[in-house]
Amino acid sequence: MSLTVADVDEAELLRRIFAVLAQHNNVQSDAIVLGAGDDSAVIAAPDRSFTVSTDVLVENQHFRTAWSTGYDVGWRAAMQNLADAAAMGARPTAIVAALVLPGATTVAWVEDFARGIAQASTCHNVAVAGGDLATGDAIVVSVTVFGDLEGEPAVTRKGARVGDAVAVAGQVGWSAAGFAALSAGVATSADQTTSADQAARAPAVTSAASRHGATTSADALDATIGRFRRPEPAITAGVQARSRATAMMDISDGLVCDAARIAQASSVVIDLVDPITSLAEDANVLGLVAEALGLTREQRTQQVREWLLAGGEDHGMLATFSPELVPDGFRAIGTVKAADTDNGVEPGVYLESQPYAGNSGWDHFRR
Amino acid sequence: MSLTVADVDEAELLRRIFAVLAQHNNVQSDAIVLGAGDDSAVIAAPDRSFTVSTDVLVENQHFRTAWSTGYDVGWRAAMQNLADAAAMGARPTAIVAALVLPGATTVAWVEDFARGIAQASTCHNVAVAGGDLATGDAIVVSVTVFGDLEGEPAVTRKGARVGDAVAVAGQVGWSAAGFAALSAGVATSADQTTSADQAARAPAVTSAASRHGATTSADALDATIGRFRRPEPAITAGVQARSRATAMMDISDGLVCDAARIAQASSVVIDLVDPITSLAEDANVLGLVAEALGLTREQRTQQVREWLLAGGEDHGMLATFSPELVPDGFRAIGTVKAADTDNGVEPGVYLESQPYAGNSGWDHFRR
Repeated sequence: MSLTVADVDEAELLRRIFAVLAQHNNVQSDAIVLGAGDDSAVIAAPDRSFTVSTDVLVENQHFRTAWSTGYDVGWRAAMQNLADAAAMGARPTAIVAALVLPGATTVAWVEDFARGIAQASTCHNVAVAGGDLATGDAIVVSVTVFGDLEGEPAVTRKGARVGDAVAVAGQVGWSAAGFAALSAGVATSADQTTSADQAARAPAVTSAASRHGATTSADALDATIGRFRRPEPAITAGVQARSRATAMMDISDGLVCDAARIAQASSVVIDLVDPITSLAEDANVLGLVAEALGLTREQRTQQVREWLLAGGEDHGMLATFSPELVPDGFRAIGTVKAADTDNGVEPGVYLESQPYAGNSGWDHFRR
Repeated sequence: MSLTVADVDEAELLRRIFAVLAQHNNVQSDAIVLGAGDDSAVIAAPDRSFTVSTDVLVENQHFRTAWSTGYDVGWRAAMQNLADAAAMGARPTAIVAALVLPGATTVAWVEDFARGIAQASTCHNVAVAGGDLATGDAIVVSVTVFGDLEGEPAVTRKGARVGDAVAVAGQVGWSAAGFAALSAGVATSADQTTSADQAARAPAVTSAASRHGATTSADALDATIGRFRRPEPAITAGVQARSRATAMMDISDGLVCDAARIAQASSVVIDLVDPITSLAEDANVLGLVAEALGLTREQRTQQVREWLLAGGEDHGMLATFSPELVPDGFRAIGTVKAADTDNGVEPGVYLESQPYAGNSGWDHFRR
């Protein structure tokens, strides 16, 4: 029998979590003035302000333990929060995490979770500054992230200007494709083991696939399922775009849905190029996944377009820039145009100059 | 049928929550540089640092909807977090909240929760800066609080010095007594209604009882049950004690348990006076509750002492000071003495110069 949370008291569980964090939380950072262990931690805010965002992940709503290891869940919880800081142009500095655990959760799962959250944070030089534990009937992970704007203003959703280029950094649609593959019961080479060793190796596999482009369906499945389990948001690109972007956010709920939020906040139209063209590298990988799922050529194109336009949770950066200022690492996918409410052109998303799927986006799209 | 969370979409639920916050979140504060509605909020940190603490409350673990209204749960979630900031000597400035809701939760409960969290925050000029919503099988509330040390160092648990006075601010044992009364099925005048009007009125009732001292068992029941539902931690006293306290924390898990944490962190002995004497005002109110519960005179004294020593969740401030510097609002309850490990005097809590209940405290006390 594996040791469960119900077998140890809170002090012992905390001791084990701190041991994991101490081993993996290798941050060269002076963000933590005072760490965990008192009523509060104290975090540096050299800028005299800080960004804050909070996200909650619920078992069977946002993740399934059958599909994701503790490491994966910790990794995702950290990464999607770090993306929220970067999407304001803020360099993420620290996170705190609250964790609700059923008594039957294995202690190994919790340690694996701590390893995932620590390593994802360490990748971006972010410290895990504290947290809270409680028991409940399902695993709930609540992470709050802090960011430093380093003297520059936050990049909000409001500043998109007519004539700007619309661009994304990071992969688009991979998480949705990986989810679809898992839902279809496709096995991958990564499914055979879920140990910490495997967890540590897998990012290298998916990074290689993403760098060089997947060339086989098997590679594409590995890469997209890896990204679903362990997203790698375009955090550095977001922070670096701070001084150029007129508006920015991360893609949580799908490109069209989130672009519509910028369009609404900025009172503009965002006219997207067909993403099969503008995001051809992603389309190639996603096409291989669609092929592996047995779709016909025609179905594939439609499915790939849907993943690109409606797939969320890659947490790529979606931003608007003066066309001559689109930074390296961003791909132009459309342009900002004027809304003209008097003539029926409401703020929202267009695709190839046609109003897109009704109103303001994709909210009710089947996902 | 009451409107439930499952009947409305997330946008509508957020719209209703923001409407409540806009109405009740009347904060004269420049803490919020950029509010909710983007990827992150931006919070002022004039001190170039900030304190942060996170707490999670789980339905049927930390509260029961049968005993607490949405307002009560929101109030408690805010207050116990504000107490964590104050326990470092930090003035709380802002909070963010993540909320997991079963689909059957009524929208009215959520609005009532928002009202409770907003009003508790407003009492201390703290802004609600953002949050997240998700669905799940039980209500989970995760609150993260930020505080400003205003140029002074944080007050940790480590600084208690031999010869210091040990003192508390705020009520002690009331929440535990109120919980015991509810557990015993005692009805109070406040139980008849749970509307927002009642929620708004009830604090005045309990405040009056606490100011003037409850003189009847009915008053004492109302007051302690009111405090269980809606604690009023000694937040202002904690912030004001910042420059004098050598160590401080809030009493979450009971006086002895938490005093043991200061004793351990500071490597000292904390020798408590019998709290029946040092906390006589509280003992009087708790005695009336014990009487209402039908305990004999002898049982009452024992029960009251137990509530005082082991009752948590009032979130009073427990601090150590040079004896001549104990601030107004704090009551001296003991002294800091030297540990002497060579002679068997381990850091921990003593009561009237006798080692208390074994090791380092009260962790496994029946609560």
